[in-house]
Amino acid sequence: MSATDGADDFETIRVDLDERSYDIVIGAGVLAQAGTRIAELLPSSRAIIITDETVNSHHGDALRVSLDSAGIAQSTFAVPAGEKSKSYDTLQSVCEAVLEAGMERGDVLIAFGGGVVGDLAGFAAGVVRRGMPFVQIPTSLLAQVDSSVGGKTGINSPKGKNLVGLFNQPALVLADTALLDTLSEREMRAGYAEVAKYGLIDQPEFFSWLEKNHAAVFAGGAARRYAVATSCRAKADVVKADERENGARALLNLGHTFGHALEASVGYDATRLVHGEGVAIGMVLAHEFSHRMNHCGPEAAERVVAHLKDVGLPTRMQDVAGADFDPDTLMNAIAQDKKVQRGALTFILTRGIGQSFVSKDVPRDAVAAFLRDKLAAR
Amino acid sequence: MSATDGADDFETIRVDLDERSYDIVIGAGVLAQAGTRIAELLPSSRAIIITDETVNSHHGDALRVSLDSAGIAQSTFAVPAGEKSKSYDTLQSVCEAVLEAGMERGDVLIAFGGGVVGDLAGFAAGVVRRGMPFVQIPTSLLAQVDSSVGGKTGINSPKGKNLVGLFNQPALVLADTALLDTLSEREMRAGYAEVAKYGLIDQPEFFSWLEKNHAAVFAGGAARRYAVATSCRAKADVVKADERENGARALLNLGHTFGHALEASVGYDATRLVHGEGVAIGMVLAHEFSHRMNHCGPEAAERVVAHLKDVGLPTRMQDVAGADFDPDTLMNAIAQDKKVQRGALTFILTRGIGQSFVSKDVPRDAVAAFLRDKLAAR
Ligand SMILES: NC(=O)c1ccc[n+]([C@@H]2O[C@H](COP(=O)([O-])OP(=O)(O)OC[C@H]3O[C@@H](n4cnc5c(N)ncnc54)[C@H](O)[C@@H]3O)[C@@H](O)[C@H]2O)c1
Ligand SMILES: NC(=O)c1ccc[n+]([C@@H]2O[C@H](COP(=O)([O-])OP(=O)(O)OC[C@H]3O[C@@H](n4cnc5c(N)ncnc54)[C@H](O)[C@@H]3O)[C@@H](O)[C@H]2O)c1
Ligand SMILES: [Zn+2]
Ligand SMILES: [Zn+2]
Repeated sequence: MSATDGADDFETIRVDLDERSYDIVIGAGVLAQAGTRIAELLPSSRAIIITDETVNSHHGDALRVSLDSAGIAQSTFAVPAGEKSKSYDTLQSVCEAVLEAGMERGDVLIAFGGGVVGDLAGFAAGVVRRGMPFVQIPTSLLAQVDSSVGGKTGINSPKGKNLVGLFNQPALVLADTALLDTLSEREMRAGYAEVAKYGLIDQPEFFSWLEKNHAAVFAGGAARRYAVATSCRAKADVVKADERENGARALLNLGHTFGHALEASVGYDATRLVHGEGVAIGMVLAHEFSHRMNHCGPEAAERVVAHLKDVGLPTRMQDVAGADFDPDTLMNAIAQDKKVQRGALTFILTRGIGQSFVSKDVPRDAVAAFLRDKLAAR
Repeated sequence: MSATDGADDFETIRVDLDERSYDIVIGAGVLAQAGTRIAELLPSSRAIIITDETVNSHHGDALRVSLDSAGIAQSTFAVPAGEKSKSYDTLQSVCEAVLEAGMERGDVLIAFGGGVVGDLAGFAAGVVRRGMPFVQIPTSLLAQVDSSVGGKTGINSPKGKNLVGLFNQPALVLADTALLDTLSEREMRAGYAEVAKYGLIDQPEFFSWLEKNHAAVFAGGAARRYAVATSCRAKADVVKADERENGARALLNLGHTFGHALEASVGYDATRLVHGEGVAIGMVLAHEFSHRMNHCGPEAAERVVAHLKDVGLPTRMQDVAGADFDPDTLMNAIAQDKKVQRGALTFILTRGIGQSFVSKDVPRDAVAAFLRDKLAAR
């Protein structure tokens, strides 16, 4: 890992999926190369930028300048920032905007924003004229290390999150780590929970590195690029092994079953709990529950708690503003979680830092008793 | 070709697309076997039937009885009959109905109806939980010989037909030719235009056979099954060669560039012109224009006209109720047709019956002059 941070200091990760293979290019300043890189990959195409209003106001001009300089004619369509835009209505408005812009099948859609824009615009790119190429330019840490890799796209249904969508791989991902400088502290921390997750899944050395270098990751520069690249590589490896999410990909849900239940319990109210915070608490719970089930000692959870506290993430259900979680409500949410099939409870548990595994048929009662105890310990 | 028409007299066509391969089973009475055939293919799945109100009232119970007898728990969601159901709103209501019914990724969606239901429900099946298996049970002649084969699904945009959708192959297609007995004469004839099209593309013997046997095809029985099977095989062959519609598949558009322009000119008003009628007139125009461009003699168009008249299809633009086509409007519609890329006009022309070919860069002026002449000849 180099200590310099020049604009040409990029790391490229190849996601190998036969004819759907693509590159993820990571580094501070890669946005300025968007035009030339897209023109190289998709010559003579025009572009439509799908973004959200916040990202557009911060960085839209920089992207447009880059496209202009490469001779790529483009237009921009910005949706309101936030999870509400992952809706049927916004999907329709994006599809219509792409058609209105006269895009044909050979033109390119650029998803420029956080996970919301990536999921929404990636879905639209898969269905307008039955599919057009798209490029992901993720602008939040969560999007750079998680949602932009793997090809999952979609919108929310009133019945649940991400219930309607597509597997649709981008043609290119450009993760400009300098863009994160304008991200709020809270969103940055939330994305960081997913970074830590990759260490906890199966990279104990990476987790140790994060314990020492988290401040540098938040500060930017080479440490941030290293953290993003390591995370992308970890996710890409899992995706390669399991593109359509049948097996190995389940490990990526470490902390997510508990986390989703917490999010559902606060009615997905982001002022109280954002996804990454739910994941942070969920990872702690997964380690503590693993200890309770005798899969590991108590020190693993203790290290997770200490590290997440260091970066300012919540680690206990009681940390959530106005916390009033009810064990039965949480259990219902867990049972309804889409990862639960026909009644059997599947959890990602762990044998220690970086040693997580898929456990099917986790006894429902054990989970319920665990949650009751955790919530009683005020 | 056998003259009998027993319920077990089915023809099976295999559509070879690697891991997306599937069977089309054709014959009178195959609906009664839907339950056992689906249970065999997708054991222990539950089903949701997506249909339209008309088809549901005629044949819904027969399908449900068949599923019940095979132990397949099912529910039914019926949309209003007609093209208007190929909309964003109806897509949303279908997706929500599938989720409401508690369908999981291993369950099956059954698209039971004409091309509208097939396109709409096939799209929904591709996006609910990022894809669930689906079975096509086409009930209109057009759906049996055309829309149920090839995996194109989608909805209409205010900007044009079929502009939003997916390539999504079914797991099985069951074409019960006896269901066509309840189809209106007009819809039956419209579907027949596509049957004749397969002969005109590259099967002169099949066209000759149709010239002699069209009455038997309309009557039902073995001749109908033969015509449906021959059409399906023709389309399946093209799809195999060109799953994502880049080259050979273009031949399937014989008669369609003119036909679509006519449909657009009447504002897709089905009381004046249904798709198959547009295709019938369009095929005549394609043959006449080919003659005018010296690709073939006049007899080809004459045979086409004679045959389409025999079955009661329109053959001239002047046959359309309240015909007031304007050559400029038609030319604009042609230019906007999705098959036209960046200005170059692509047409399917012919060297004679069953000898059609793709012609790129057809001079715009020649088409305009041809349409003017045809419309002047009142
Ligand atoms: N597809 C997948 O595999 C996958 C994986 C994980 C999460 N997700 C989805 O991702 C979404 C969450 O992603 P997210 O956390 O990026 O949410 P987001 O897209 O809403 O971004 C969070 C906030 O940060 C703002 N923002 C983004 N980049 C910025 C920047 N550079 N500067 C200033 N502000 C910026 C956004 O406008 C938004 O207000 C969820 O919908 C989740 O379901 C998808
Ligand atoms: N996906 C493709 O490749 C493809 C190809 C060609 C056409 N299409 C699409 O197909 C649609 C047209 O298909 P269609 O002509 O079947 O239209 P449709 O589905 O509207 O059916 C026509 C009418 O016949 C009724 N009907 C259907 N089966 C019946 C039966 N057995 N008995 C009584 N009534 C019955 C329907 O209720 C409807 O009113 C268009 O939307 C077109 O875009 C798709
Ligand atoms: Zn997550
Ligand atoms: Zn047609």
